[in-house]
Order: sequence, then C-alpha cells, then structure tokens
Amino acid sequence: MTNEFLFQKIKEKKSFLCVGLDVDLEKIPKHLLEKEDPIFSFSKAIIDSTHTYAVAYKPNLAFFEAYGVEGWKSFKKVTDYLNDRYPDHFTIADAKRGDIGNTAARYAKVYFETFGYDAITIAPYIGKDAISPFLEYENKHTILLALTSNPSAKDFQYSKENDLLLFEKILKLSQQWDNSENLMYVVGATKSESLKSIRKLVPNSFLLVPGVGAQGGSLRDVATFGLNSQCGLIVNSSRGIIYASDKNDFDIAAAEKAKILQLEMEDYLKSAGII
Amino acid sequence: MTNEFLFQKIKEKKSFLCVGLDVDLEKIPKHLLEKEDPIFSFSKAIIDSTHTYAVAYKPNLAFFEAYGVEGWKSFKKVTDYLNDRYPDHFTIADAKRGDIGNTAARYAKVYFETFGYDAITIAPYIGKDAISPFLEYENKHTILLALTSNPSAKDFQYSKENDLLLFEKILKLSQQWDNSENLMYVVGATKSESLKSIRKLVPNSFLLVPGVGAQGGSLRDVATFGLNSQCGLIVNSSRGIIYASDKNDFDIAAAEKAKILQLEMEDYLKSAGII
Repeated sequence: MTNEFLFQKIKEKKSFLCVGLDVDLEKIPKHLLEKEDPIFSFSKAIIDSTHTYAVAYKPNLAFFEAYGVEGWKSFKKVTDYLNDRYPDHFTIADAKRGDIGNTAARYAKVYFETFGYDAITIAPYIGKDAISPFLEYENKHTILLALTSNPSAKDFQYSKENDLLLFEKILKLSQQWDNSENLMYVVGATKSESLKSIRKLVPNSFLLVPGVGAQGGSLRDVATFGLNSQCGLIVNSSRGIIYASDKNDFDIAAAEKAKILQLEMEDYLKSAGII
Repeated sequence: MTNEFLFQKIKEKKSFLCVGLDVDLEKIPKHLLEKEDPIFSFSKAIIDSTHTYAVAYKPNLAFFEAYGVEGWKSFKKVTDYLNDRYPDHFTIADAKRGDIGNTAARYAKVYFETFGYDAITIAPYIGKDAISPFLEYENKHTILLALTSNPSAKDFQYSKENDLLLFEKILKLSQQWDNSENLMYVVGATKSESLKSIRKLVPNSFLLVPGVGAQGGSLRDVATFGLNSQCGLIVNSSRGIIYASDKNDFDIAAAEKAKILQLEMEDYLKSAGII
C-alpha cells in the first residue's frame, strides 16, 4: 500500500485508528473458548465490528506465538481474513524483529510476501544491516521502534551522544538510508512531549503511536504535536477496544469504543484542515 | 540448567561449542527435500552427528518462521527432539525478541515453559521492562544482544555517552537488575578486540559468541580475551558446520568440522588451566 492510498483512506474514513489484536485467551469472552479456534473467532468478530472506524489492524505476534504452533495457525487465519476481506485496510505485523542481514531478508520475505503484510515493526539495535532488506520492498513499510511507550524506555533510548538522544539518532540516521521513504516510526503516546522534536527530524514520516487508552497516553496531545499535512499518524488502541466487554456484546462494545476514538480523530483532522 | 551444570559439561566434553541451526532449504542436501519434514530431518541428522562435540544447540527462529506455519511445526519437532534426546545439552532459542512488559512475560512463558528452552536471545532496546519477565525464571538464561557481529553494529551500539559506549552501558546497567545472575550476553567474534573491556564489565557472565567461521571471527582471539575461570564462553558456529557438505555425507562432514573446533577449544581450555 502506498502512503498516498493510506492517506486517501484516512480522509475517507475520517480516522487514523489502528486496532491492535493482542488476543489473550484469559481475557476474551468465555463462550468463545468453545469455538474451534477462539483466537480467530474473537479476532474476526472484532475486525468485522470495527472496520468502519479503523484504517489499520495490527496483530501482535507475541500474543499468537505464546500459543505455539496453534497460535501460528490462528495468526495465519487472521492474516488471510484481513487480506481477503479487508484489502483496503493497512496491515501491520507487530513483530519487533531484528536480525543480521541474511536473516533479516528471510523475515522480510515471509511477512511481506508470504503473509502479505503492508508493514512490520522492527527493532533498530542491530543497525542498518537488519533494516535494509525490508526497505527494498516497494510500497511496503518498515516501522522502526524509536521511542516506546513503556517506563523503562529511558534506560537506553535516552542515551545522549553530542546532544542527540539515541532515538533521535535513529530517526536522523535512518532518514539517510536508501529507500527511507518506506520508513515509519513507533513513538509511544505516553511520550507525546517528544513529538515536537521528533517532527523536526522526520517531518514527513508516518508515526505509529501505541499507548493511547490503557497505557494513559492522550490522543489530543498526540494529534496536536504529531499531525502533519498528510496526517502522518496511525494511532493504535488494543486493550481499550478489544476488551471493552467480556460478555456476548464484546464486538458491539469494541465498535463503540472505536467509534468514540474515530469521532475524536475526525475533530482533530478537521481542526488541522486535513479534511 | 544451572551455570554450574553447563560448566561441568564444558569440562567433560572439553568444548564450549554451540551448533547454530540456521536451516535453509536452498542449502541443505537435495535428497532431503523428499522427506516429509526436510527441516527436521536435516536438523536431527546434524544434532545426532555433532552432539559429542557440542555443549549447546541454537535454533535460529527466523529460519523456521520463514516457512510460516510449517516452519513452526518443524521448530517444535526440533525442540522436542533436543529435549527428549539430549537433555544435557544447553538449548538456546535464538529469537532476538523484545517487547514491553506484559508481552515479554508471554514470550518468557512460551520459550521457557512450553518449549522448555534453557535460554533465549533478547534485544535490549526497550529496556528493563522487556527483560525482567525473563530474568524471573530460575535456572533459565536471558542472553542480551550487546555487540553484534554484523558491520552496521556500529550504527547504534557504539553511541557514546559519558565515555561509555551503548553496548557497555547495557552490560553495566543490566548487571544491576534483579536476578542478573541469569543474564548472558551476545558478543560477536568479529569484535574480539572489545572482549577485554567487556570482561571488565561482566567478568563472571557467560558470553554467547557468534561469527566464528563464515563471518570471519577468530576463535583464538575470542578464547584469549574471553575465557574466565568458569569458561564463560559459548562459541557458536552455524554455516561453517551445518553446510560443510551438500552431499549425502553432510552429517559426517558437519561432525568433522565440529570436531576441529572442539579440539581447538580443548587446547584453549587446557592453556587457560580450566581442564
């Protein structure tokens, strides 16, 4: 998917919402546990009920992988469902992978080609070798972890070298790599005070912003400091939407939560003159 | 597995060799492609032929994941085979995972409990939150990426803050965390000149050293600067062993390569007065 197509969808739907599929069998409605594949059944219902309000979906690999081979089967089913049924939605494999060159090339191939994702999240620690193989894919997006939403993000991400914090160095350096137009960045909503300086370093890049809702990030702050003329934001909510209810009405409750966020986003997009 | 047991095995076998299972269907002997599960058949033959010379095995998750659900089935079979047949070998899931707290806990559970690995490799970028859930497991080992063997390791790992390089900061800070005795570190053999300063920061920790052989690292240098009184080294070789031959004799050729490394290691262990 091109950035232009994504922006077009954002304008049509008046939304830059991504729904995170962090499916935990201990949290989903109990009646779904009787299904043949509860992870898929839950994900399918959430996708069907929220697709009007969301422009993107982000299955978190860890939650699938936690169930071993069975979890991987569910991941494949969820992925196929997204591709077949909602090809106009931007799909993100939240994998946070990162490995040296020849291994990175294999990850790129499986997520972009075999599974057909539009984007994948990647950890930057290993450096350019780990990232270039992903950037070679046209109209596919590599979302580098820059500033994560968790408390200990400061342990290493704020390491300072010549007045540049490590995450700022990652933003700056990666912009100089070949095919850097295929880069996006993860910036936690809990770190919205950093969005101003981040926007100076990557004015045109899309930012994937987790941490709104359950983790306490403010959507208003994120929109104020993060929006650019092409929107430039994909804001993710996982738990706040998918676990809105643990009863039979879970999908309706999820849709309601998604709609609330979409309406708020619509306001911000209007205020910024984007729609 | 405890560090003491691992050290005992190193002394018994006169070896600190780890065989990396980076199984690539394009590189394995053609006749194996007719088997029901070529990845498993190849891995099993390599394990059976090298187990005398190796103290550890390290399946690289990316290589399995590259084949989607089928790859995960093979990963499970290889894992079960190692656990059932060679329980005294140290097993490392080379996953390079790294995610925020609640997600990290799921990864720890699946690799340490469900799959029963002794150790897992973890990327440090997200900070302590991503690592602590792994450290809570007694006699399980968390192997943090410190200094990787690839050329672009310098992009971020050498970022300097107050005279401390980023990988040194990771070593230093992580040693202060609870259960830090469960930490090991990845240090590429291609960076053996850094082993002296690394040993000052983590004198007692085991180091997992990839990059000997195909990537050009010198085993002699690694042993000279890396050995401590409890050995403290696990040196990995993947391609140099497992692809020693692409003919019917691939397992015999692999054993020969493993034996050459074991004999060299025996010399270094003797010179250092460890055996």
